[in-house]
Amino acid sequence: MGSAFGFRVDHRCPHTGARAGTFSTPHGEIKTPFFMPVGTRGTVKGVRPAELSAVGTQVVLANTYHLVLRPGTETVRKLGGLHRFMGWEGPILTDSGGYQIFSLSHLTSIDDEGAWLKSVVDGSDVRFTPEGVMDFERDLGADVIMALDQCPTDPEARPDVEQATERTHAWLDRCVARWRAHGGVEAGQALFGIVQGGAFPDLRRASVDAVTAHDLPGYAIGGVSVGEARDAMRVAVESSAPLLPEDKPRYLMGIGTPLDCVEAVCAGIDMFDCVTPTRHGRTHQAFTSEGRVNLRNRKYADDPSPIDPGSDCKLTGSFSKGYLRHLCKADEMLGAILITLHNLRFFHRLMEEMREAIAAGTLLELRERVIAQGRSHAE
Amino acid sequence: MGSAFGFRVDHRCPHTGARAGTFSTPHGEIKTPFFMPVGTRGTVKGVRPAELSAVGTQVVLANTYHLVLRPGTETVRKLGGLHRFMGWEGPILTDSGGYQIFSLSHLTSIDDEGAWLKSVVDGSDVRFTPEGVMDFERDLGADVIMALDQCPTDPEARPDVEQATERTHAWLDRCVARWRAHGGVEAGQALFGIVQGGAFPDLRRASVDAVTAHDLPGYAIGGVSVGEARDAMRVAVESSAPLLPEDKPRYLMGIGTPLDCVEAVCAGIDMFDCVTPTRHGRTHQAFTSEGRVNLRNRKYADDPSPIDPGSDCKLTGSFSKGYLRHLCKADEMLGAILITLHNLRFFHRLMEEMREAIAAGTLLELRERVIAQGRSHAE
Repeated sequence: MGSAFGFRVDHRCPHTGARAGTFSTPHGEIKTPFFMPVGTRGTVKGVRPAELSAVGTQVVLANTYHLVLRPGTETVRKLGGLHRFMGWEGPILTDSGGYQIFSLSHLTSIDDEGAWLKSVVDGSDVRFTPEGVMDFERDLGADVIMALDQCPTDPEARPDVEQATERTHAWLDRCVARWRAHGGVEAGQALFGIVQGGAFPDLRRASVDAVTAHDLPGYAIGGVSVGEARDAMRVAVESSAPLLPEDKPRYLMGIGTPLDCVEAVCAGIDMFDCVTPTRHGRTHQAFTSEGRVNLRNRKYADDPSPIDPGSDCKLTGSFSKGYLRHLCKADEMLGAILITLHNLRFFHRLMEEMREAIAAGTLLELRERVIAQGRSHAE
Repeated sequence: MGSAFGFRVDHRCPHTGARAGTFSTPHGEIKTPFFMPVGTRGTVKGVRPAELSAVGTQVVLANTYHLVLRPGTETVRKLGGLHRFMGWEGPILTDSGGYQIFSLSHLTSIDDEGAWLKSVVDGSDVRFTPEGVMDFERDLGADVIMALDQCPTDPEARPDVEQATERTHAWLDRCVARWRAHGGVEAGQALFGIVQGGAFPDLRRASVDAVTAHDLPGYAIGGVSVGEARDAMRVAVESSAPLLPEDKPRYLMGIGTPLDCVEAVCAGIDMFDCVTPTRHGRTHQAFTSEGRVNLRNRKYADDPSPIDPGSDCKLTGSFSKGYLRHLCKADEMLGAILITLHNLRFFHRLMEEMREAIAAGTLLELRERVIAQGRSHAE
């Protein structure tokens, strides 16, 4: 692997499988572990790129499916690629549409060749094949591009999981071929393969073998956010993360809560994305060092204290709960914006604290603290 | 007049009645002429206070009527007053509810004593009297507080205008008495009286006499944004602005377009407020040096140029029309936010340019340029 990409482990936890590293990309170095805000349509909802930087965002995720539908990857390419398009100069990761094939299954038909998705914008049928997705992601121009995968509809239904996992492997072969034809890492894009296998440890292990048969710049664990069962997720992560190559970043897709993230870091995961901080921000739920806070609650009406006395967020720390409650009740945009910023800072700071704790050998203490908070978060 | 308030004329236009001054308040000096963004419920929609500063905002306006309904002026007072409540450390002006008594007339009953307004929040009846409004505005704690006035429903219907103007004068007497009882300017709040008189020059002149019989820190011209007739507005401004005291700031309420502002500055006006830049931002209309731009227009889909090549906005200048069009079409909040910021910068910069042009003796050239732009703005 040449080019601008590289991954280095800086610290290892003496008590768990956690590591703190540095992931190099054409748009800068990223300290791991890290959390990626979701910028579905080329924007983290309500947040300017300069504000993302101010709350500690290192990388932004954008959704290929949504950008294919609108404005179209060709338009993004004409406008200079995703970095220039959305005004974000740091690294970007694009997903492949695999999750949407699963989550919008009522609009999808799928076979070995690929999937047809009906556009939610204009009702047209859009083709997603491994090769086509590589072309879409090349036009978007993100630093990290995800292979097209198939998430099983039920991670505990073995025949379904087997079929989806095999198809994911076959699609990865085709993605790798197309990505190499585009120039591979030398062309400035790192392809990550995705491990499937549902809640079955043996299928996860077999999937790790199949996916890591390709020497790629990074690997992801997929299909873990599709079920409700937290235990199934833990099994999936713990049975596959430790088997992934030590010298490559490991990405747990679509996760999660603060506690999910800490548990996964302990199992050796480096990268996360989730809509949790932004979506909860828009419904006025704040993550705090004292648990989850619903800022619409009447009890905050006259409360002069900040959202979280333990927060170091420079953009939101000066506003009172009373003011935020007023904004939320009045349906003022600024309420959702400020809580989104606060929540992003919460997640980024958790990652920074985990990195420090890994270096200091105190990750298990941090985990205990987050478990205590998590009881409130899980309310 | 003691205290932190003061007004000084720094430059006079050699060709018009325009002046450039400095208005001192307890929360800082303001260079005139200036434009106040409207922060109806204690927030300029979608914009953080730090962003207001970054686009050149000096003063923010908030609406007493809306804050009385929600969260209540008592709550704002408990939370430290409007400055701390909304996190804006610069000067603030609150209006009196007089405009809402007019614009929400279907929810209003009015007599010499005051007005009842039905709450749009919970249907309750809320009392607005001159004394009560002074109490509301004291609780809010703005630097500049407006007297309660009555806007005539039709500025060209003489009996209606006469009655509203007389009532405005009687209410001003009561506002002044209550404001003095609260401590006057020494208590940190400057009361401005409001001239009415509709589209009748003689009634405007008589109203100036009645209002300026009180020695107040500033004076406003009201009732000009209620009619559609631009000529009537011009008559109202030109017949009253030059008669207002030279040594006090002059505020034209609820105006307006860029051209309206330039014309009014030429007539001696120093202060403006209007929802134009923010409301147009939310409907994706941008004010530019080349006229009005509708960013939903298909022709901008692949346009890599910024909203306005002539803009110096640091927060929005790096985004392409193509990206903004995408955000607007996808109903992404960020579209409205960025265009709002751009429009605010446009209005503030116009004020800065007028100030420079007044000092340089080139205001009439600037006026010609804005007239040319105005043809597009009036589309």
